Amino acid sequence: MTTPARPRRLAHPAREEIRLEPVLHALSDAVRLRIVREMAAAETGLSCSHFVLPVTKSTSTHHFRVLREAGVIRQDYRGTAKLNALRRADLDALFPGLLDTVLTAAEAQAARHGDPARDPAAGLTATASG
Amino acid sequence: MTTPARPRRLAHPAREEIRLEPVLHALSDAVRLRIVREMAAAETGLSCSHFVLPVTKSTSTHHFRVLREAGVIRQDYRGTAKLNALRRADLDALFPGLLDTVLTAAEAQAARHGDPARDPAAGLTATASG
Repeated sequence: MTTPARPRRLAHPAREEIRLEPVLHALSDAVRLRIVREMAAAETGLSCSHFVLPVTKSTSTHHFRVLREAGVIRQDYRGTAKLNALRRADLDALFPGLLDTVLTAAEAQAARHGDPARDPAAGLTATASG
Repeated sequence: MTTPARPRRLAHPAREEIRLEPVLHALSDAVRLRIVREMAAAETGLSCSHFVLPVTKSTSTHHFRVLREAGVIRQDYRGTAKLNALRRADLDALFPGLLDTVLTAAEAQAARHGDPARDPAAGLTATASG
């Protein structure tokens, strides 16, 4: 007998477990900010392969995990792919205006200085994308 | 002959050098958030000795340095003491609403769960203050 296949589940903090400090830490990285900005602009969940990032696949996986464990995004398996979505309702309920203010600040900074996670010359080293 | 004494100066980023990611990182720690909340509530600059923090003096010095190097606070010598003040005008000009949104979120979280940098039982270990 084999164990019946179960849908794999990734660990997420419940809304009441989300804390401000890890959320700010999750948002304090250029690549993670870029991921969050793309998710905010998308109407639906996005697979990891949607994101073309200037980092290796393992680094990319790390960044998604930091965002998930802080409570910024949900990651749910669809088959073998992970579907990613912002936890906007949770964040807006806990920290009103925070996500939008950070997104606006990130847009303004990218307009002033370029996006280091999109334009490697602006700060990050380009390697294979994940 | 001795070199004439000069006022010591600490390094600060100019306004146009301040970046969102280090600012968010500086704010992503319970002790640093508490420092910033106290500065925001104060009308004037505060000496380091004003802050009673649940960390050692060297850790406290580290936290102030992270805040200064990110551009969140100014630290200026007055004699042998450092006077600390928020760079509110710079932050508000670069990232409108960000500081106030984070401060409001920190207050709301402290009301819900207690302040881990004030109440050691809420998360931080209490040691000698700096």
